[in-house]
Amino acid sequence: MKTEKISELTINRLSVYLRCLNELADAGEQTVSSKTLAGRFNLNSAQIRKDLAYFGEFGVRGVGYYVEDLRVQLIKILGLVTEHRAVVVGAGNMGYALANYSGFKPRSFLIIGIFDSDPAKIGRVVRDGLRVMSVEYLKDFIREEGIDIAILTVPASAAEEVFALVTSAGVRAVLNFAPIQLHAPEGAKVRTVDLSISLESLSYFLANPSVELATE
Amino acid sequence: MKTEKISELTINRLSVYLRCLNELADAGEQTVSSKTLAGRFNLNSAQIRKDLAYFGEFGVRGVGYYVEDLRVQLIKILGLVTEHRAVVVGAGNMGYALANYSGFKPRSFLIIGIFDSDPAKIGRVVRDGLRVMSVEYLKDFIREEGIDIAILTVPASAAEEVFALVTSAGVRAVLNFAPIQLHAPEGAKVRTVDLSISLESLSYFLANPSVELATE
Repeated sequence: MKTEKISELTINRLSVYLRCLNELADAGEQTVSSKTLAGRFNLNSAQIRKDLAYFGEFGVRGVGYYVEDLRVQLIKILGLVTEHRAVVVGAGNMGYALANYSGFKPRSFLIIGIFDSDPAKIGRVVRDGLRVMSVEYLKDFIREEGIDIAILTVPASAAEEVFALVTSAGVRAVLNFAPIQLHAPEGAKVRTVDLSISLESLSYFLANPSVELATE
Repeated sequence: MKTEKISELTINRLSVYLRCLNELADAGEQTVSSKTLAGRFNLNSAQIRKDLAYFGEFGVRGVGYYVEDLRVQLIKILGLVTEHRAVVVGAGNMGYALANYSGFKPRSFLIIGIFDSDPAKIGRVVRDGLRVMSVEYLKDFIREEGIDIAILTVPASAAEEVFALVTSAGVRAVLNFAPIQLHAPEGAKVRTVDLSISLESLSYFLANPSVELATE
């Protein structure tokens, strides 16, 4: 592995490459060149080679990449061989949406609990086998069930408190949907999905239709 | 403006700077240096200067930035002086969540319609003044109401069709939540929020806790 710092964007792109390789594997393709991969999925072939080079020598001269082989490597690099056990905190519409989100790989990410503090929501069935629990039990649940990811869909005003609670219970990775910046303690990682930033970038495009943005 | 291509990340960061400046303005601060701005909000001061330099000379030697002045400039650059009128297509949990999302600036982004094809959902009240309408009326609604942004929360299988429909009706900016890559026609822009990519980057962190990622 190179000593240069790998960026979050490289990791995000690995996810995209993996998705493309899954498609190629489903289509029965055995090998693919970075150029074909790029052409087929609107990617950048130099970027693909550079991103993969951080993690090893995957290309074979005259062949390109072995689809299945690279797929397995990416799954390993991204830590997707391990099953991650997640909870959702906040049983509003967003919490329900995420607990039922079809885009999450069921073999890598299991949402096994959803919590709220509102007595009116506790006990409601979100989907088969998943019922809203009281946050009172969140800490114990995290410890007993070996939860490693928490997804926060609580209001901004409650986010810091819930964040402190889940990290103190041992959760090391948090996906935060509250519109607030959370600061992860040592050894933990928080990733905030800020939907208004996405909307503002569309607004910029609408205001500046002729400006072509670089995607890197 | 520099001729170098501005990246999407720069635009995203402008949104973050704007948010920070809003906080400073609320706190009554008149001026701020890039260093103070960086220190206070966990940003990078060289990056701030570089990002802003694409759009003009905002810093004043010995002063830094005038908070209100820079705030107004960023609002202009991001096209947030214009009111954007948006529809949500797909009245599932995610659609409901977005129609009620408190993080969207109410003065810049108005969600004025929500649509679905499921007769069981049509007519339901999402919030005061917002009722689920049939997709049958989507095209006319977009034209008559001057909708410029569509937010898609439909299943992946329906996304391409809905995307074609909204862009052909004149929508130029699409925020896509369906786990599928959509290709924008000339003059339109699509931004996909892929929640599993965020989860996979957390998975990478859990698998490689000692690797520190660069955020650029």
